[in-house]
Amino acid sequence: MDKLMAFIKRVSEATDAMLERVLPPEERYPASIHALMRYSSFAGGKRVRPCLVAAAYEACGGADGDERVFKAAAAIEMLHTFSLIHDDLPCMDDDDFRRGKPTAHKAFGEALAVLGGDALCILAFETLASVGRIDIISEIASALGTSGMLGGQVVDIESEGLHVGRETVEYIHMNKTAALIRASIRVGALLADAPADALERLSSYGNNVGLAFQVVDDILDEEGTTETLGKDAGSDAEKGKATYPAVVGMDESKKYAHELIEKAWADIAFLGDKGAILKDLAEYIRVRIS
Amino acid sequence: MDKLMAFIKRVSEATDAMLERVLPPEERYPASIHALMRYSSFAGGKRVRPCLVAAAYEACGGADGDERVFKAAAAIEMLHTFSLIHDDLPCMDDDDFRRGKPTAHKAFGEALAVLGGDALCILAFETLASVGRIDIISEIASALGTSGMLGGQVVDIESEGLHVGRETVEYIHMNKTAALIRASIRVGALLADAPADALERLSSYGNNVGLAFQVVDDILDEEGTTETLGKDAGSDAEKGKATYPAVVGMDESKKYAHELIEKAWADIAFLGDKGAILKDLAEYIRVRIS
Repeated sequence: MDKLMAFIKRVSEATDAMLERVLPPEERYPASIHALMRYSSFAGGKRVRPCLVAAAYEACGGADGDERVFKAAAAIEMLHTFSLIHDDLPCMDDDDFRRGKPTAHKAFGEALAVLGGDALCILAFETLASVGRIDIISEIASALGTSGMLGGQVVDIESEGLHVGRETVEYIHMNKTAALIRASIRVGALLADAPADALERLSSYGNNVGLAFQVVDDILDEEGTTETLGKDAGSDAEKGKATYPAVVGMDESKKYAHELIEKAWADIAFLGDKGAILKDLAEYIRVRIS
Repeated sequence: MDKLMAFIKRVSEATDAMLERVLPPEERYPASIHALMRYSSFAGGKRVRPCLVAAAYEACGGADGDERVFKAAAAIEMLHTFSLIHDDLPCMDDDDFRRGKPTAHKAFGEALAVLGGDALCILAFETLASVGRIDIISEIASALGTSGMLGGQVVDIESEGLHVGRETVEYIHMNKTAALIRASIRVGALLADAPADALERLSSYGNNVGLAFQVVDDILDEEGTTETLGKDAGSDAEKGKATYPAVVGMDESKKYAHELIEKAWADIAFLGDKGAILKDLAEYIRVRIS
């Protein structure tokens, strides 16, 4: 995994440098919202989505030193952060901590958290526009909308305490989490001008990895400690959230996560050695629960 | 004003038809958010921004029957609606009524109002992508961000009860309201491939009309009745909002609104007869207080 760790470090640094460049400086008027945007953007996110953008781009033979990759990666990370800020609001999941730090509304107040989330979303589209590819803007907008991430968030909120079935949990995870993960991979492939059949296989890889990612998150929420998670352990169960462990049990959830990663591997077999980083990234998600 | 009324009717109908087409049907899962998006999009908005898009497009010699104009107009209207939904939230302006109907969070709950606003914003960018012009996406994103609409909203919220000066009120109005109005006009001109000097004059027209629009709104909030406004009259004063009447008085505010409209007229004198609708639209804003 040494090569993977070097890759993650390189991509995270390049993404952070791009975020540093596109986010307004904190001293710019009105300062409070710019402080919030930076606070949440540099709150210790693992930059999973930027890594998937860059890994897909490089696996599909994209040229070195293409700034568009990190513009797209930074935009996707801002969109992810926007969704977390709104998700944490009192009227939504009402979370006080994320990654061990007070959530945006705890640190800056609710009004600014709503507007700061909005501002990250808008700045992400402004940044995507600077990439200059309409297809990438369409791809991401459609992954975020009500037939993607936001649809998943709605059903997640509405399912609280309802004892929904596996089908509903699958819908929530596939949309709330997997849609943007799949889009990240597709965006990397699109920037490398990958052919249609490669795009299709990478989409399937994205669905499997995205779903696995959320199943693993559910497992960790139940098995992890508040210290390792950076947020309250067991908070999903407390809120009556629709999670995999809640509907199919812990053993079956772990088995399912393993199966999904193996399916993801099969999806990218066609890449051969060029798919090594994508393979390791999938494994990296699994080892968190190994 | 007969020609103007016919124009407004035509553009409103075309915009509504486009919104009808791009908004997901209410029965699509998850239904609640789609119901909210339609509820707020068809809540009696006057379609001022779509009229400005179409008027600028036609004044700059754009060809008849160009669907892109109404896609852009519908997207801008969705972005305006997104900003109103979030603005009305309890943590922001805490308004229960808008245009005589319960606000989104009153009708659907706070969580759905946050997500529904987000969804309209995302769908707007998806719709703009289908127009196929990167420059228009940049234009609108930059008008909405923290050096535009969202910056104005932040200062608006933070100025409540603070007795700020005219400069701050001017900043709020120029950004919160005028930025998207100016962008609407510029988008129409860009779609008609207007030359740079026309764009510049139309931008100035947009600033003047946009500022006048908000000054008139402030005046009406103080002088109108709850019945004519569709929301609580005098609510700005009650909240200690930074408004023109509050900082410069009512007489000076009316005088300023008239001056701004006259400046707007001067800006578009170069269009001659082709600018008739833009001229009448500016007058239409003024007559509300005449």
